[in-house]
Amino acid sequence: MKTYLDCIPCFFKQALEAGRLASADEITQKRIVDELASIIPKFDLSLSPPEMGRVIYQIAKKIARHNDPYKDIKQKSNQLALRLLPSLRKKIEASSDRLLTAVELAIAGNIIDYGVKNSLEIEQEANNFLNGHFDIHNEYNKPIFAYQEFRQDLLKARVILYLADNAGETAFDRILIEEINRLPKKREIFYAVKAKPIINDALMEDALILGIDEVARVISSGCDAPGTILKLCSEGFITIYNNADLIISKGQGNFEALSNEDKSIYFLFRIKCMVVAADLGCKVGDIILKGLS
Amino acid sequence: MKTYLDCIPCFFKQALEAGRLASADEITQKRIVDELASIIPKFDLSLSPPEMGRVIYQIAKKIARHNDPYKDIKQKSNQLALRLLPSLRKKIEASSDRLLTAVELAIAGNIIDYGVKNSLEIEQEANNFLNGHFDIHNEYNKPIFAYQEFRQDLLKARVILYLADNAGETAFDRILIEEINRLPKKREIFYAVKAKPIINDALMEDALILGIDEVARVISSGCDAPGTILKLCSEGFITIYNNADLIISKGQGNFEALSNEDKSIYFLFRIKCMVVAADLGCKVGDIILKGLS
Repeated sequence: MKTYLDCIPCFFKQALEAGRLASADEITQKRIVDELASIIPKFDLSLSPPEMGRVIYQIAKKIARHNDPYKDIKQKSNQLALRLLPSLRKKIEASSDRLLTAVELAIAGNIIDYGVKNSLEIEQEANNFLNGHFDIHNEYNKPIFAYQEFRQDLLKARVILYLADNAGETAFDRILIEEINRLPKKREIFYAVKAKPIINDALMEDALILGIDEVARVISSGCDAPGTILKLCSEGFITIYNNADLIISKGQGNFEALSNEDKSIYFLFRIKCMVVAADLGCKVGDIILKGLS
Repeated sequence: MKTYLDCIPCFFKQALEAGRLASADEITQKRIVDELASIIPKFDLSLSPPEMGRVIYQIAKKIARHNDPYKDIKQKSNQLALRLLPSLRKKIEASSDRLLTAVELAIAGNIIDYGVKNSLEIEQEANNFLNGHFDIHNEYNKPIFAYQEFRQDLLKARVILYLADNAGETAFDRILIEEINRLPKKREIFYAVKAKPIINDALMEDALILGIDEVARVISSGCDAPGTILKLCSEGFITIYNNADLIISKGQGNFEALSNEDKSIYFLFRIKCMVVAADLGCKVGDIILKGLS
C-alpha cells in the first residue's frame, strides 16, 4: 500500500509516542519532531507507510539515545500472553471448529493493546470477540473474512511462512500454529520476527518466551521496519518467502508492506486507521482475513 | 496558551483539510504539507496555536491559489443560522431564566459543526444540549460553568467586547446579545469578527447577514488568525479592547490566544481537543464558561 497524505499527521504522533516512551524530555521530543519534519519533503509517497515508520523510529532512537523504547511494554505483553495461553487452549478444546476458532483468536490477538490492559481484560476482550460471528462481508458488502478459501489453501500448503506482528500477540499465533500442526499431513512452518527493535513488534526473544520454537521454526526477517518490507529483508528470509506455498501475514503493518505483492498471502488483522479502511473500502475496526491471490 | 507538541500532528491535519477544501490536487496538497514541514523546526512553541494556524492557512491559500477555501461552508452555515433564529428565540421566550438560556445557547452554538449538518440536526443538537443541566464543576471537580460570576460582571459592565468565533455560530451570539441588551441599564456592545478569511471564522459579511449590526457595533479585530492574537490586531480594535469592562470570548481559538492575558475575559466554548482539555484539567466535550479574573 502506498503512503497517503493522511498518514503524515500520524507519523508525527508516532514520533512523539516513541520519544515519550524513551523518556525524552520536551526539548528532545521537539528535536525528534523537527528531524521528522525535515525529511517529510523528501519522502516518496509511493513507498509504504512502514518504510517511513522505520525512519521515524530510527530518528527517535538516535535522538532520544534509547535503543528499545517499547521494551517494557513488550515484556509486560509477554508475561500477560504467557498467563493467557492455558485459557486460549481451553477455548480451542471447547470449540466445534478448532481451526476456525484458532483463526478468530489469531485475529483477536491483533486487536489487543497490551500496553494498557491486564490479562483479565484481554481475556474478556477475546471472549467478546469470539461470542460474535465473523461476517464474511462487511456492511459495504466487501469480502473481509475469507475463511473457507484460507482453509483450502492451508490444507494444500506444505511450506508456510507466518509473519509475526506484536509481542504478546505471539500467544494467539502459537494457538493457530498448534492447530495448523494438527491438520492431516505434515507442514513446515516458519515464524518470522523483526530483526531489531521497532515499536512493539515481536523480536526473537518475544517469540522464544512464548515457546513458538516448539511449534515452528522461528526466524528473523532481517527487516527492522514495522512491516515486512521485502527489499529490507535478509537473503535467507527471501529464500524462505519465495519457497513458501502460503504466507500468513499478521497485523496492519505487514498488510501495508505486502498488499501489492504477487504471492499467496492471507492477511489477518483488524483495521486500526482511516487510511487503511479507505484503501480497502472498509471501516476502522473491521476484522480482516483476506487473501491476495 | 502555549503550543504543545501534540498540536503538531493536528497542524498537518488542518493543512490537509484547507488544501482539500481549496480543491487542491494531491501534488498541491503535498506541497502544502512540505512547506508546513519546513517551518515546523522554526516555530516557537511558546506562541499560541492560532499563530501557527494563521501561518498554515496562509500557506494553504498561497499554494492552492484560493483565497477562501471555507467560503461554501460559511455560506451554508449562515443560511442554516438564519433559519434557526426564530426557534432559538422561542427557546428564550419559553425559558424561566432568559439570560442563562441565552448563555447556554451561545455555548451550544460553539459545539455545532455546520459543515456537515442540516438545520433540523442543529436544532436537535441544541435541544439535547439544553435538556441537560450545565454542571458548575466537571467530574474532576474543576469549575467550568461560572454563570453567577459572569452574570454579576455582565450587570456591572458598561462596555462589552464580544469576540466572534465561527460563521453560523453568529445566530447564537445574536440571541445572547439580544438578552444582554434587555438587562437593566444600557451597555455598549462591540462584536468583533476576523479581518480576512481564516478557516470558517466569521467575517464582517457573516455577522451582517445575521443582522448583528442591529444589536451591536460590528467591528473587525484586524486579525487574520483563528483566534484573537492581540499583537496582530488593529490599533482601533486594541483601543476598544482596552476600554472594555468585559470581554466575551467565543470558541477554543480565542481561548488559546487570550488565556494568558490580564483582563476581565469570560471564555465560552466547548473543548474540542485533548491538548486544551489537558491544559485546563478537563476533558474533550466539556462545556466551558470560565472567567480569567
